[in-house]
Amino acid sequence: MAGRPVCVYMLEKKPEIVVAVDGCGGDRGSKHIVNAVNFALTLYPYMRLIICGPVSLQEELNHGRIDGKRVEFRLSGQAIPQDAPVNEVLERYQKSSMRLALQAVQSGEAQAMVSAGGTGPLVVLARHLLGEIGHLRPALVARIPAGPGRHALMLDLGANAQSTAQDLADFARLGDAAARLMLGLESPRLALLNVGTEEQKGSHVVLEAKSLLDNARELNFCGFIEADRIFRGDADVVVADGFAGNIALKAAEGVYTIFSKVPGIKRVFARLAHPDWLMPWQYNGSVLLGVNGNVIKSHANAGDDAFAVAMVEAAKAAELDLANGMRDILTHAGA
Amino acid sequence: MAGRPVCVYMLEKKPEIVVAVDGCGGDRGSKHIVNAVNFALTLYPYMRLIICGPVSLQEELNHGRIDGKRVEFRLSGQAIPQDAPVNEVLERYQKSSMRLALQAVQSGEAQAMVSAGGTGPLVVLARHLLGEIGHLRPALVARIPAGPGRHALMLDLGANAQSTAQDLADFARLGDAAARLMLGLESPRLALLNVGTEEQKGSHVVLEAKSLLDNARELNFCGFIEADRIFRGDADVVVADGFAGNIALKAAEGVYTIFSKVPGIKRVFARLAHPDWLMPWQYNGSVLLGVNGNVIKSHANAGDDAFAVAMVEAAKAAELDLANGMRDILTHAGA
Repeated sequence: MAGRPVCVYMLEKKPEIVVAVDGCGGDRGSKHIVNAVNFALTLYPYMRLIICGPVSLQEELNHGRIDGKRVEFRLSGQAIPQDAPVNEVLERYQKSSMRLALQAVQSGEAQAMVSAGGTGPLVVLARHLLGEIGHLRPALVARIPAGPGRHALMLDLGANAQSTAQDLADFARLGDAAARLMLGLESPRLALLNVGTEEQKGSHVVLEAKSLLDNARELNFCGFIEADRIFRGDADVVVADGFAGNIALKAAEGVYTIFSKVPGIKRVFARLAHPDWLMPWQYNGSVLLGVNGNVIKSHANAGDDAFAVAMVEAAKAAELDLANGMRDILTHAGA
Repeated sequence: MAGRPVCVYMLEKKPEIVVAVDGCGGDRGSKHIVNAVNFALTLYPYMRLIICGPVSLQEELNHGRIDGKRVEFRLSGQAIPQDAPVNEVLERYQKSSMRLALQAVQSGEAQAMVSAGGTGPLVVLARHLLGEIGHLRPALVARIPAGPGRHALMLDLGANAQSTAQDLADFARLGDAAARLMLGLESPRLALLNVGTEEQKGSHVVLEAKSLLDNARELNFCGFIEADRIFRGDADVVVADGFAGNIALKAAEGVYTIFSKVPGIKRVFARLAHPDWLMPWQYNGSVLLGVNGNVIKSHANAGDDAFAVAMVEAAKAAELDLANGMRDILTHAGA
């Protein structure tokens, strides 16, 4: 599955997938969402969308020549600010578009949801409405490039502001199950992100997590990995705390962007073997693992293409029946 | 100073600088060190080297057509392993090449030293032999690219395995003084590396450090910066804990390396406006700030070119009289 280009979805007959979209999150407004919806519906012809958002979005959708049979609109004028305090999220935003989209998953009307809203609110609401799998701490995972046509997974990408050694060990278990399902691997190679590969190097948390994982015989844990190797395919799952994971990916994205803006480079890359497998917009949409439902987080500032890719990621998670598959694997493993 | 290409040092008349070199650290052996020495002496004609290392290195130097007037050799067969436990470093490695090179700075024979040995041992020995400036926690700083012909500074790059909020505030003070001296700025813009720029986002440590820095009126503190902006010149000094800082730079380096290995790309870049200001080997050699002497850490796996650049960084630190300048600024500021 992973590794094939997005357009493959146009060639295969698939069962219909319903994805709920939080139409309030994100920095770019209604017009951007309409463009993204159009693009996503083209990329994935077997997807229907339930879009939750304000009147302005409804009007844009009406003007946007969207196929009415494939889009249902649900009105919600309430947006949750990106940085809403966690303790207010449950009480104060009962009618928010994010909550509405999650409720569509909870009720079974949608098989997945996607939001470009704040990570904090999304994680709190998803845990509350959908419940957790076992006793594992939920984490955001994303496919990352690992060579031409190859992917790895990386987590946590920011579901948790700080992590203990036990949290990192939880992320490894989540990542292991996710790699079996998302990458089709039988025994995914797990590695822990660190500042060196020597036994004694790193923070206390990372060193303690390593000793927990060294003792987890059921996992294929291969030790530490440094940040310059994460895109090399040295590991199938890169485990990091949400702070370091986020910083590694954003730093990589920053360099990619600088390269891609060199004048004339796109033309040149088109002729050469352009490493387009690195292209960040292909990788928008991280999955919140460890909750009973397929929840996808998009970058808040994702462009039209990237937000559409996040919707497709949601459809792919639904198609894999990811959350249920995770629960089966992890319950079997006694998480 | 920063921003000029390395070769400018061949055109200016400068006072002679003596740099001590730890000839044991690093992963690449004696032949590599001899190549690097030759390259460094060419790059910086006003540098003399005191090279501390084993007999095998002495023999390689004798065979390597090195200008004998510009190199003095000091024999030390003892190497400190990269991951030597901190508590053993002071007791057990009294005759090590790293210690010998630091002692050359301590005695005033050399104005700077460079080592590709382990960061832990280097920091412990440097603090012990040279002493600290004020009550600030020492940190590794490096110039990072911030656009064509522009640089910023980033610290800590791994002198500390974990950091408190107060440590981060210390790093900001060290970075501020260093940017005045190394970048020639009057009021360097400081930013704290975080996973978002919103007020409430991030780890407890980062949020607490921000509130300490918001109250430090003598500093030009501009708030948070995300990892995808660190090479954009948005800040003159990027402050991070050693774990996150190391991971950000290595992730960036990883992406750069992938791009630079695309077949044919070098030829193409030579014709285009190649963003060679990003090139990692140009940036080898981070300075240990906060000790009374100019101590430069090279990557352990630096190639010949990169290790030579670290020697030139040492010479530049000496030329700036960096450690003394730092002490003057920070003592004046009451650190």
